[in-house]
Amino acid sequence: MKLLISNALIVPMTQEGTYFRGDIGIDGKHIVFVGEADPGFVADRIIDGSFHIAMPALVNAHTHLSMGLMRNYKDDLPTLQAWLGEIFPIEDKLTEKDILIASRLGLVELIQSGVTTFADMYFHPQASAEAVLETGLRASISITLFGSLEENKTRVFDRERLLSPYVGRSEGRIQVDCAPHAIYTCPKETYQFAHSWAKDHQAILHTHLSETMQEVQDCLKETGKTPLQYLLDCGVLKDVKSLLAHCVHLTDTEVELLKGLDSTIVHNPSSNCKLSSGIAPISTYFQKGISVALGTDGASSNNNLNMFEEMHVASLLGKVYKPTGYTLHPYEVLSMATVNGAKALGLEKKIGQLKAGMEADILLVNTHASHLTPLNDPFSALVYATQASDVDTLLCQGRILMEGRKVMTIDEDQVIKDAQKSWAEVQQR
Amino acid sequence: MKLLISNALIVPMTQEGTYFRGDIGIDGKHIVFVGEADPGFVADRIIDGSFHIAMPALVNAHTHLSMGLMRNYKDDLPTLQAWLGEIFPIEDKLTEKDILIASRLGLVELIQSGVTTFADMYFHPQASAEAVLETGLRASISITLFGSLEENKTRVFDRERLLSPYVGRSEGRIQVDCAPHAIYTCPKETYQFAHSWAKDHQAILHTHLSETMQEVQDCLKETGKTPLQYLLDCGVLKDVKSLLAHCVHLTDTEVELLKGLDSTIVHNPSSNCKLSSGIAPISTYFQKGISVALGTDGASSNNNLNMFEEMHVASLLGKVYKPTGYTLHPYEVLSMATVNGAKALGLEKKIGQLKAGMEADILLVNTHASHLTPLNDPFSALVYATQASDVDTLLCQGRILMEGRKVMTIDEDQVIKDAQKSWAEVQQR
Repeated sequence: MKLLISNALIVPMTQEGTYFRGDIGIDGKHIVFVGEADPGFVADRIIDGSFHIAMPALVNAHTHLSMGLMRNYKDDLPTLQAWLGEIFPIEDKLTEKDILIASRLGLVELIQSGVTTFADMYFHPQASAEAVLETGLRASISITLFGSLEENKTRVFDRERLLSPYVGRSEGRIQVDCAPHAIYTCPKETYQFAHSWAKDHQAILHTHLSETMQEVQDCLKETGKTPLQYLLDCGVLKDVKSLLAHCVHLTDTEVELLKGLDSTIVHNPSSNCKLSSGIAPISTYFQKGISVALGTDGASSNNNLNMFEEMHVASLLGKVYKPTGYTLHPYEVLSMATVNGAKALGLEKKIGQLKAGMEADILLVNTHASHLTPLNDPFSALVYATQASDVDTLLCQGRILMEGRKVMTIDEDQVIKDAQKSWAEVQQR
Repeated sequence: MKLLISNALIVPMTQEGTYFRGDIGIDGKHIVFVGEADPGFVADRIIDGSFHIAMPALVNAHTHLSMGLMRNYKDDLPTLQAWLGEIFPIEDKLTEKDILIASRLGLVELIQSGVTTFADMYFHPQASAEAVLETGLRASISITLFGSLEENKTRVFDRERLLSPYVGRSEGRIQVDCAPHAIYTCPKETYQFAHSWAKDHQAILHTHLSETMQEVQDCLKETGKTPLQYLLDCGVLKDVKSLLAHCVHLTDTEVELLKGLDSTIVHNPSSNCKLSSGIAPISTYFQKGISVALGTDGASSNNNLNMFEEMHVASLLGKVYKPTGYTLHPYEVLSMATVNGAKALGLEKKIGQLKAGMEADILLVNTHASHLTPLNDPFSALVYATQASDVDTLLCQGRILMEGRKVMTIDEDQVIKDAQKSWAEVQQR
């Protein structure tokens, strides 16, 4: 199948300030040209991009996909800790089937806001992997670790076996990573086991870090160290790629320590605000050259998986909160949600930019809308004015997942009905 | 015309925590029942509300409607002052026809995000009033004052005469108010003239106040007083209703002074963040019993007029920034955008709540969406998860302005084309 997106306003995310009107040719899974059409390319199908921005599909670098079931539930508790106290008992009641249904719900949301790739951390990961295959997205599915080394050894070997067939069938779209939950739920030995597993499997270590002041203070009290220093001294960030979700409360010393690591901070601004955790000094991280990606966190602390909203909130916070005076720019915010997210997951040769040779993960924003008129600067337009509902068309690995706002790979109505039923049953248990 | 909205999830905004499933009867301009249907009511038309939340239409209490033309233009300047330095010369080039076209654009945006009522401050107000009549919304159109007393005297008498026919034809939907722009653009005499005019006309005095630290510092330097104290000492907030846009930097003393006044603070969180002005301590204002409404400011500092996004940003900031420890709750955020906005404009007997006798300004949110499943708490759902694009239907004074996302009162495509043309011409001048 050869597909041509014609005459679109292309934001390739290859360089700050670069955008142009042109064509994108797609042959099977791959982009074959961006800009000027190859005269020898005969398309089987043409999508008219005249009223669209074409840009790389988004990467949601930290989420708990299935927490959508607990959306708008037990909100407005004073802290992360108080909220987790309400959420953990509900999570204990979720079955593998609930996770499958909730994953489908989350995947529909991701598609509808232009996301093809996400990094997940949750229970029953094989159920999420199944939903990823059904819907055609791309994922880092983590094996999530809580508690003692012994129980996690069993868990990892069990999950590896369960996930293996999904990876095999995913055409390179599913990778299995390892996620020790947080320093307050996993002892040192569990982190070290996760590290060793990640190294052996060339996988990513995905964890929550420095999300709240409480976490920092508890860590200082128990270990005499800040959370990042503690993980460094445990040796668990060395020689692996890591995804550090939140990092709201890093000291200047910690920021310096990050420079030598293959780590990406994942900023989750809505969740950090909503749980009163704080505002991460993202503009400072950019200024210091730290890699930052963007995530929504789970829908129960957000309360959706809308990456356009997340870019907007990140932009606003990055302009009002700038401890070192450096202002976050729209291009940097778009980078977080595209190229930096791709790098964070080791996918920078496949996705995150629009250029020949990359896989075709592309989103089209419909700019024929009152709130995008006049368009003026497309970078500003994308982060400050665009809504998730402006995403018209989404491709992953050359396959159309949504067109004209219609999700093509799964029946949205059925997904909604199943999720309502599943949540009603969970509450009865 | 008798209209029935049947079986909706009604959020009447009459009391915290109150919501129920029921019917809303509308006879002409007015609501005749909310909840249980009157058995004698025979509807000419029934709108099925089974998959909808019905709530009061929103009030955007501070905007500059026609600044949409400068959307995504000259963003990312370091301060409000630097940005105004770029915007003022462009504004000088805008003709009355540009303002008419830009107003239509803004009104389409307002309709599409569930707003029926707005408080505007801009040039050529008669052009905005004309667009309001065309589209069927409700407005406080201000006569905006800049500069010396003499030029403003002429301006006010001129604008009054120009606006009068629009007020006459508006069936009570247009009111003329008075807006001295700010303490850094108007001398004391201009404010006193505005105050006297507002008192005589039982109109509202609408102004920018304490938007930036620069404004506060300049005022302290020039007058020895904070901006609010300065206006109080000029006598211009006494015996009138006032709308104080921004109030990002009020001292505790100033907050106490506000208590005795008929003033409403209008919170514009996106604009305040984007221009690096600061975060207004809204949770403190609520805790102290100060009336707070919500606005988008102009689309060039936002960059849209999306009140659902504004509620979302206000919610997030109100949870992460709470100087006195008091946390802003979803109901309070919804109040800002409905009942408090109505009160601020002296319209609390007409709009802002759903109850019998009020005029029918109603919005229907389509909740059949992945990102609103499960719905759980509707107040949380509305402020944290709902998108402007979920607004399906909007009524103003009983008239349907939008249904199934289609704007009924104006041709959106033509509005977009005209705005693009107008902006291209402005840039050529």
